[in-house]
This record gives sequence, C-alpha cells and structure tokens, in this order.
Amino acid sequence: MNAEIIAVGSEMLTPYRQDTNSLYITEKLNGVGVSVDFKTIAGDRRKHLVNVVRHALGRVDIVVISGGLGPTEDDLTREAAADALGVRLKRDPDIIAQLYKRAAVRRWTMTRNNEKQADVITGATLLPNALGTAPGQWIDTVFGTHRKLVMLLPGPPHELKAMFEEQCLPRLSEILPKRHIATRVLKAAMIGESAADTKIAPIYTQYKDVETTILAHMGDIEVRLSCSKPIADLAQARVDELAGKIEEELEDFIYSSQGETLEQIVLYYLEMRGATLAVAESCTGGMVAERLTSVSGSSRSFTGGAVVYSNRLKVELAGVDPRLIEQHGAVSRDVAVALAEGIRERCGATIGLGITGIAGPAGGSEEKPVGMVYVAVSDADGTEAVEKRFPGDRRSIRFFASQQALDLVRRRLM
Amino acid sequence: MNAEIIAVGSEMLTPYRQDTNSLYITEKLNGVGVSVDFKTIAGDRRKHLVNVVRHALGRVDIVVISGGLGPTEDDLTREAAADALGVRLKRDPDIIAQLYKRAAVRRWTMTRNNEKQADVITGATLLPNALGTAPGQWIDTVFGTHRKLVMLLPGPPHELKAMFEEQCLPRLSEILPKRHIATRVLKAAMIGESAADTKIAPIYTQYKDVETTILAHMGDIEVRLSCSKPIADLAQARVDELAGKIEEELEDFIYSSQGETLEQIVLYYLEMRGATLAVAESCTGGMVAERLTSVSGSSRSFTGGAVVYSNRLKVELAGVDPRLIEQHGAVSRDVAVALAEGIRERCGATIGLGITGIAGPAGGSEEKPVGMVYVAVSDADGTEAVEKRFPGDRRSIRFFASQQALDLVRRRLM
Repeated sequence: MNAEIIAVGSEMLTPYRQDTNSLYITEKLNGVGVSVDFKTIAGDRRKHLVNVVRHALGRVDIVVISGGLGPTEDDLTREAAADALGVRLKRDPDIIAQLYKRAAVRRWTMTRNNEKQADVITGATLLPNALGTAPGQWIDTVFGTHRKLVMLLPGPPHELKAMFEEQCLPRLSEILPKRHIATRVLKAAMIGESAADTKIAPIYTQYKDVETTILAHMGDIEVRLSCSKPIADLAQARVDELAGKIEEELEDFIYSSQGETLEQIVLYYLEMRGATLAVAESCTGGMVAERLTSVSGSSRSFTGGAVVYSNRLKVELAGVDPRLIEQHGAVSRDVAVALAEGIRERCGATIGLGITGIAGPAGGSEEKPVGMVYVAVSDADGTEAVEKRFPGDRRSIRFFASQQALDLVRRRLM
Repeated sequence: MNAEIIAVGSEMLTPYRQDTNSLYITEKLNGVGVSVDFKTIAGDRRKHLVNVVRHALGRVDIVVISGGLGPTEDDLTREAAADALGVRLKRDPDIIAQLYKRAAVRRWTMTRNNEKQADVITGATLLPNALGTAPGQWIDTVFGTHRKLVMLLPGPPHELKAMFEEQCLPRLSEILPKRHIATRVLKAAMIGESAADTKIAPIYTQYKDVETTILAHMGDIEVRLSCSKPIADLAQARVDELAGKIEEELEDFIYSSQGETLEQIVLYYLEMRGATLAVAESCTGGMVAERLTSVSGSSRSFTGGAVVYSNRLKVELAGVDPRLIEQHGAVSRDVAVALAEGIRERCGATIGLGITGIAGPAGGSEEKPVGMVYVAVSDADGTEAVEKRFPGDRRSIRFFASQQALDLVRRRLM
C-alpha cells in the first residue's frame, strides 16, 4: 500500500517554518511496509484543503493529514476531509460534554467555538487525544471502488506522535500483511562519502533485499540498512550479515554499529577504561567540550578544559611555553602538542587533547591557509599530532576539526 | 498571482531528508508579491510527476519545479512536465554540442545518457546553468484558458539559487505589477513568546498593511515585519514606524533591530568599548564560548576561558576557593560569582562570566532541581548574579543558560 502525507497550516507556506511531522510519519509507515509516494502542504483555506484531499484520495491508499483540528476559524481539516469524501459532519454531544469537563477541571472558560472540535466525519472512529483537546479521526471507507484509509491527526508533534503510535499503528498492523523489518545503523568518522561508497557499493548492491541509505555530514557518515521479511529472524540475519561485511570493509573508520554519536562513543570508551579527558581548544572555541557535555553523565569522564583563543590564555591556562608560540606560531604542530600535554597535566586527566587551526574566513596565509588544523592527543604513552586541511566555511572547518579531535581520542582508546 | 512549489526526488520521501529549496523559493516569490499556496514532494516516477504537475497547473498560476533534471534514468522532470502540458520534447543539437564541449574541457567522458539534458519542452526558453550541467527551462504558456508560468530548476541548492536569482526573478518582475517590499527584523532575548505577543499585539494589529510574524526559539524571539507598497519610501516608512513602536514597548529586551545574533551584538558592544570577555562555564560546557567563537573576528574581544565541569577545575582554572564549593555546593550563587571573578582575573579580561547549574536529566534535588542555573557577570564596577529556573530537556536548559549569560553581558555593556 502507498500513502500521502498532507500537512495543513499556512505557517508552513512561509520561508520560516517547515513541516517536520512527515519525517516521523514516514519512518513509522515505512516500518509497517507502506511507502510514502507524495507529501503535500496546504494552507488554512477550505477550497485548497478539499482540493488536496481529493487529489490524494485519487492517487494513494492511505491519506494521513496533520494539523487544522483546533477550535479556531482557521481549523478546517474536518470540514475539508468531509467535503472531499462526500460525507457529512455531525457534532457529537459526548465530545462536547468532555470538552466542557476538561475545561472545567483546568478552570478554563470554554468558548463556543471550541465545540467544532466535536464535529465527527460520518463513519469515522474517534481517536482520543491524551495530550491535547482536539481528538483525531480514523476513516476506513470505500472511495470510488477502492478501499481508502484516512487519518486526521493533530498538528503539535507530541500529540501527533502519541496518537499515531498508540492508535493508528496498531490498527494499520491489523489491516496490513505481517512483515518484519530489521534495521541497523553503522556510523563512520573522517571518511568521505564517495570514498566510503566506492568501498562498500560492490557489497551492498549484492543485497537486493536490503535497502541501503548513506547519509553524509561533515566527517560523519551513516549507513542505514533495512530489510523486510515475513520472518523476523530472516530479516535480522540479512542486515547483520551485510553490516558485518561493511564493518570489515570500512574497518576502524566505523565507530558505532548501533547508531550512537561519536561523542557518546568517546565517553563510553573513557568510562570503560576508567580514564578522564581534558581539552584545550583554540579554533574550535569550545565545540569539542560542548559536544561532549551535551551527553548526560559526561561529567564522569570529561573533566573540562580551556578555550584558549588568545595566546595569553594558551600560556596561562594550558601551560604552553610562550617561546613555542613565538617560534612556530600559534597554529603549529608544536603548539597543538604543548596544548594537549599542558592541559592534561593542569587538569590531572588521563588524556589531554589540543586543537589549533585557522577557521577563517580571515587569518589565512600562503603557508598556513584557512582550513589548516593541528590536533594532538596526549597520554602516559606519549603524544601524537595530525595536520589536516579542512574544506568549506568557518562552520564546516570548526565542525570537521571537532570531529577529527574526537576521532583521534577514540582511536587512542581503541 | 499564486504559486505551487514541487520538489522532485525519492530521497525527500524518506525519513532522512527534507526539501529545503522551497524555503528559499518562497522567500523570493513573496518578495515579488507571489503567495505560495501549495508545496508538493514527489518521487522519481513519471506517472507520479505527471500527476502532480497536472494538478498544480489546475490550481495555481506559477509552478516552480526543482530537481530531476540530471542525466540519469531517474531524472524525469522534463518528460513529466511535457506530458502534463500536453506538448513535446525536442532534443536540441546546440545543447548537445555544449555538453560535449563542457565534458571535453573537464576531460570527462560524456556518456550517451547525458544527451537527455538537451531535451527541451516545446515553447520553453532555456535557462543556462552557470554552476552545473543541466539547463533549466522557463515556460510561459496558456493552459486551458489561463496564462501559466512553469519553471524547471536544478535540484542542487547553489545551482537553483543562482538560476532563480539571475534568470527567473528578473523575468517575473517584468511580468508582475511593480511592488516595493520593505522588511525589518527585531530580535529580543529572554522574554517568552506569549509575554512578548501580549505586549505588542495591540500595536501590530493596528498596522493591517504590515505583515508581522513572530518566531520564538528558547529565549530568543524574532519579530519580522514586511510591508508592500507601490512606492518604496511609503513601505519603508510603515515598517520603520511599527518597528519603532515595538522597540519602545519591548524596551531593553530588544537586542537587535537589523537581524544580528545575540553573540554578534555582544561582540559588537565589547569591541565598541574596547573591552574583553572571559568565561568560566560549568553546565553549558563550552556552549557560550562556542557561540561567541562562531562569529568571525571574535578573537578581537573574546579571550577564551575555561570549561570547569569538575570541581577540581573550578579551583584549578578559575581560581574558585574550594571552601565555597564545600559550603554552598558547586551549583550556587556564590560559586557563580567566584567563577566570574576568578576567570576575569586569571584571563586579564575586562569582563568575567560565570555559569553553573543543573542541566539534567540526572543530578537534581528538591532544593536544587533540574533547570536551576546561576549566571554571574563581573567587571571593575563589581559583580552581579541571577538565579533562574529553565524549562525543558538538557538541550533546552543549556541553551537557555547560554542565552541568559550572553544577555547579562549585553545588559552590562549597554
């Protein structure tokens, strides 16, 4: 079966807001074997809404509509869906009573316009909304000569997700043929998308029954595998087999086989080894610390560190010998090494990390161009440093540098 | 006139990718007075594409299609648009010659399938692609009894933007009635969306000819004003008048009237006063430093600072008296003050900033719940500290805290 997702709301036709519900709905529909063939966004105008719902009924089996179920004049999804289906709306006195009760409990005044939330499409099953006022509706009907499913869901993402998960998915699973979908997410750092694809395309193209998607984002690659079979173990065996071969091919570029982030993996390794990490960041300006501390519980192995934007602070907080800066410049292998060693000692950490580079757009020279970054990692066994040239703008160079730094720590811990 | 934007590509019907071109196109179309009434996303299937283009021709004046112009079998936009318009495609020998020339210059082998990029819809004007291979097409035609404009644009955002800006907008401006649009963006920090709206709704609702949009994001509010008039000065006068009244009402919550970010404003004030800033961050873990250093040239007034996640580092790097931590706990007004004063002295900065709090989800207590944050700012005139309770998850609490910290520095500099 195929589906169309319709997002209702004029704000999603401005340059400032995007529909995001459809990503969640797509994931869940794919999970029960339904492909999404169209997505449509329409504003709060009855004529437009009737038009898009009617077109959707003409081209897909399942129509999922989000938004436009509230109490205001602009909330027209119920009316439009009824028009498109050629049936009537009926105001349900039980729902009106519930709306008044809900308002009374919360000491709200329930204004008359709220009653339109009790309008039910003929033949619809109501979907109670545990997290909001407007109930959803589920319509299982015949349109023309075909069976059609139509779902009316609230726009706020948390209300929509709860309703879809608890009420729509179970109903869909009953209707649709049983399928078992196994998925795996492999993640790799500091390898380019085309380099990775060149390595693994000859492998995954052999697995016609596994869908492989590669997503790339500045030094971070996700390989998503998905396989659908009538028997769960069979589907799992296929994705596991393919995942194993990809892991073998990409070797130590792979940092996660269950979808964790690189910062989670670094913290996990640190904790496993009872080690602590301190960082001294120049060009990344706190990004490595920020990424690590975004993980709850990171304080167990990340002690902190210094953002040493000025030369004075490189000396003052990370203990760099000022003569090194004079001799080699602040952006140099020697200063990166001194930052890693200095911050490790100063913070009493097992591992020290030092980063210095030119994020641009200004500050580059022929000898040290924008994008040049040195990263050093230091522990009881010694210090190693890498020199890199990262592409893109300031944001991209800084992210690449933070990714390289975290990856260097990960490799040291492996 | 109204428009529909159609994004073509099966990858945008997965849970992982979104169409973003439509935000840019919407902004530009709005700028010449065209409203976007529908957005549609369809995959790389000819039947589906013909269907969506045909529906679009039936409901809007302008159809903008992006993607599906490349050389592969999956690139079907040309064929589908021709089918929907009921006209033919003709392979243009001049374009074929150009394609071969382009390939030769780059020492590529031009395979046969590339020739389909030379297929031109009958009656179309070609739009040369300065940044890629596939040319776009501009169709100005009569469909049924109505004039319709159809644009075929490449999918890659940089190619699409250049082509739209340089070739489509000038053509549109010639066709559409002259209008002048003036805009202003006011930004405010640390005021809630509903609090702000309660203050300013009585004002902006008086300006029926100015479109006012409020966007809110964790302690940051954007008020966007837009006015369209036949005379440029008139439009500008209206948005400026309304902007002035809103600024008066929101007073010192407003930090920018030209759309700058809060970190840009803080750096601008620092530089104006010849001041420098150093930060000592606990719960924000480097986020304040990262936000400041994301701005190019920040090194002129931001010296750096310390991420003092552990108590040891609060003492070691920010010079906090360990007895203060023992007595009041690491999350306390006294420690925030000591962090601000200590880091200011240690870094030799004009202003010191200290942040400590509980970002959660773990680590809260009845006395000091998750979301409790202390921020202190210190300069030659003394130190002030604020206590806040921020809502939401770890990400939200950390962002709110960083926003509060930057805003406190801004107010100190005002």
